[in-house]
Amino acid sequence: MTVAIYPGSFDPVTNGHRDIIERASRVFDKVVVSVLENPRKQPMFTIEERVEMLKMITNSYENVEVDSFQGLLIDYAKQKNSNIVVKGLRAMSDFEFEFQMALINRKLDSRLETMFMMTNNRYSYVSSSIVKEIGSYGGDICELVPNEVYNIIMRRLRQERDA
Amino acid sequence: MTVAIYPGSFDPVTNGHRDIIERASRVFDKVVVSVLENPRKQPMFTIEERVEMLKMITNSYENVEVDSFQGLLIDYAKQKNSNIVVKGLRAMSDFEFEFQMALINRKLDSRLETMFMMTNNRYSYVSSSIVKEIGSYGGDICELVPNEVYNIIMRRLRQERDA
Amino acid sequence: MTVAIYPGSFDPVTNGHRDIIERASRVFDKVVVSVLENPRKQPMFTIEERVEMLKMITNSYENVEVDSFQGLLIDYAKQKNSNIVVKGLRAMSDFEFEFQMALINRKLDSRLETMFMMTNNRYSYVSSSIVKEIGSYGGDICELVPNEVYNIIMRRLRQERDA
Amino acid sequence: MTVAIYPGSFDPVTNGHRDIIERASRVFDKVVVSVLENPRKQPMFTIEERVEMLKMITNSYENVEVDSFQGLLIDYAKQKNSNIVVKGLRAMSDFEFEFQMALINRKLDSRLETMFMMTNNRYSYVSSSIVKEIGSYGGDICELVPNEVYNIIMRRLRQERDA
Amino acid sequence: MTVAIYPGSFDPVTNGHRDIIERASRVFDKVVVSVLENPRKQPMFTIEERVEMLKMITNSYENVEVDSFQGLLIDYAKQKNSNIVVKGLRAMSDFEFEFQMALINRKLDSRLETMFMMTNNRYSYVSSSIVKEIGSYGGDICELVPNEVYNIIMRRLRQERDA
Amino acid sequence: MTVAIYPGSFDPVTNGHRDIIERASRVFDKVVVSVLENPRKQPMFTIEERVEMLKMITNSYENVEVDSFQGLLIDYAKQKNSNIVVKGLRAMSDFEFEFQMALINRKLDSRLETMFMMTNNRYSYVSSSIVKEIGSYGGDICELVPNEVYNIIMRRLRQERDA
Repeated sequence: MTVAIYPGSFDPVTNGHRDIIERASRVFDKVVVSVLENPRKQPMFTIEERVEMLKMITNSYENVEVDSFQGLLIDYAKQKNSNIVVKGLRAMSDFEFEFQMALINRKLDSRLETMFMMTNNRYSYVSSSIVKEIGSYGGDICELVPNEVYNIIMRRLRQERDA
Repeated sequence: MTVAIYPGSFDPVTNGHRDIIERASRVFDKVVVSVLENPRKQPMFTIEERVEMLKMITNSYENVEVDSFQGLLIDYAKQKNSNIVVKGLRAMSDFEFEFQMALINRKLDSRLETMFMMTNNRYSYVSSSIVKEIGSYGGDICELVPNEVYNIIMRRLRQERDA
Repeated sequence: MTVAIYPGSFDPVTNGHRDIIERASRVFDKVVVSVLENPRKQPMFTIEERVEMLKMITNSYENVEVDSFQGLLIDYAKQKNSNIVVKGLRAMSDFEFEFQMALINRKLDSRLETMFMMTNNRYSYVSSSIVKEIGSYGGDICELVPNEVYNIIMRRLRQERDA
Repeated sequence: MTVAIYPGSFDPVTNGHRDIIERASRVFDKVVVSVLENPRKQPMFTIEERVEMLKMITNSYENVEVDSFQGLLIDYAKQKNSNIVVKGLRAMSDFEFEFQMALINRKLDSRLETMFMMTNNRYSYVSSSIVKEIGSYGGDICELVPNEVYNIIMRRLRQERDA
Repeated sequence: MTVAIYPGSFDPVTNGHRDIIERASRVFDKVVVSVLENPRKQPMFTIEERVEMLKMITNSYENVEVDSFQGLLIDYAKQKNSNIVVKGLRAMSDFEFEFQMALINRKLDSRLETMFMMTNNRYSYVSSSIVKEIGSYGGDICELVPNEVYNIIMRRLRQERDA
Repeated sequence: MTVAIYPGSFDPVTNGHRDIIERASRVFDKVVVSVLENPRKQPMFTIEERVEMLKMITNSYENVEVDSFQGLLIDYAKQKNSNIVVKGLRAMSDFEFEFQMALINRKLDSRLETMFMMTNNRYSYVSSSIVKEIGSYGGDICELVPNEVYNIIMRRLRQERDA
């Protein structure tokens, strides 16, 4: 059984993320979407909120599990009995950073294989940072994020803007 | 069952190709390595010779099949009941060309997913053209191509050099 | 009055080209779409055929003129009283080549300014070569080229395939 | 009438910026150079100081207006009756970031067209950050920034160094 | 006599750094490896500690000197009677940043030549930040850093993790 | 004594080539500029003519030797008692190709070190192909090639144009 892990910050989840989740779920037997807890970053949403958002957009996929983790990806993958990491690529700059991360992960565990998938080019400009940037100026993000979580994100953006 | 197609010219097969075949065979249930017949290119080895070389280096992998095809990749994938294409990436320049091909294939058949895998960075400089270039000047290619096919390639390179 | 030249091979014209023509026509007072006669290339369509195709897709734009030229772009621009060249960018690799051409043109005539516009990302994978490649294998190109010229291109592709 | 907006931080203005302003003023009927107020960045110069510097170097151009704005570029462009944004490109890395910004702006307002111009390659290494970096170590910046504002920038750099 | 300067942060020194030092020592008569004191960065190791680590891994090279400096590289190079700067390149992204720095240094002092060397591709994924990142999560860094300094780095990483 | 080889086609020699020769001659004790005989390419100038042109522009440099070679660079370097190859970089695309060649050369002979130097950015758009392209349309190439060889190149371009 092929089990793939799709790790990320998902702060917040975007249509680009959902696109990759959907594609990966068609390729692998099981996909674990997992929020990376990065103690050095100040997120907009808590780990629990991000896990919740991912669950809302994936509950119709039977082979997708939502989880969170901290520490090294190679340790987490072992724990999940997975030897596949899925990453979405939007542009050249993504590629170089992700390539380096994949090389280092392969060095740390030669069994761990990183598979790159292309985001739909309709979403090639969408990133969590862009969503936060546009939202912070009151721009319309409804085509950038999944419908299921649009209101949650809008509310938080308004709170931050008013703070 | 996940069936992935690994298409290419393989003229000749290199250690970089073998590396991707080995990695893909660990990720997918079945891998079809398939030589693309390109009527516009003048190859060094015939389709039959290239299929033969691929069989020699993959006969220990139970889930790897060797084949050849002509025409559109999307048609061939349908015929093989596969919705996954595997491509190896060595460098940035690979990436942009392969990305464009993957986008066009997705346009022609939205179910067809291209998965990019990284070649071992020990082989990041190896390509079929480099093997032919080095070989044509009498350089040593023994670390660039699989042992099983080294003699076959050397013989052809000598023939071409002497011609 | 701002007059911009949009030079290219247009062999054949694609939806990407039409997208740039439409955008440029909204930015500049006049746009001259001009087919470059390259004596060293063996085209699929004659200069006259390409001019004809461009006329078919631009006849509703009042400020777009279709023309052809040979020789240096800087000489042609002077003749057309234009100091602006428009180029469409789809990807990183386009960028580097076009940047070098723009630098050399600026060197030859410092008044000539090259303006780069982004192709709609829905067409980021479309190029004349891709259209010819897909078409030559009998693939469906109807979403890659303008409706007005689809039949003309299909007929030629069939002729070449049958030849 | 073609009205183009040239937005930026201009903290401080460099010879690269001046080069783009001069080129844009030859292409468009009117150019609005506008300082973006970014509340999250700690600038070296206030908005007023940057507007003042831009006025000093553009007062001989009749069709150049200097302004400042906050919020979304698409809203500001509407307010200025402009559908054109001008950006200078120096290098590949500029390109990818600016391309993404242009795609998102086009998504938010499909009428807004981003036009990329090449900075003179004599200034391809000049950026506001480089000016601040060199200046902070007492390096000579006189060929990096316009003469009109050289003394203003040197004074501030000395103040920061002595602080 | 050719004297080359190899400047860097070396926080901490990696196998990639050692690789460049060894290569440069075979090409130039003398190599000065010099730690740049950057007052704006919060390092993991003090200047003295980094100088000490570099001395430990270079004491068998007769033509390598270890030093530190602050301020502009061009001033430091003059003081060391050197007109050559050596930089290691691992990937495309390195290239663009280093190219810009080399252009600005050449602008400030036209005699100063920057020579780029390729890091061994076995170390193409190794950087000081990656070492710190992996180490902070308890990952094994023994193949990423020189044996001579492995224990020093491990001890500091444990201290930081426990703090 | 440091002996560096600067290999290339030099068909014809450009101001970019001269710039690299001058810089390399200031860094290394001796520089061997050597024309690569490529039997698969149809050059504009014979090997002898290219050697002659290089001699004309380098006869004032005491430490520069002009030569030609065929076969593998690693064999030629050994014969010249050199372990250094110099390559000029103008742009990103140069970089990736040259990087791959340098990796393969290092693989074939680990003692051979490739050093990359930046071409003056005034010449970043100049290449032998551009010179031939511009010249073939009657464009002015006087700022692209050395004065000493300008007439030789112009004469050949006119001959080819008239042929």
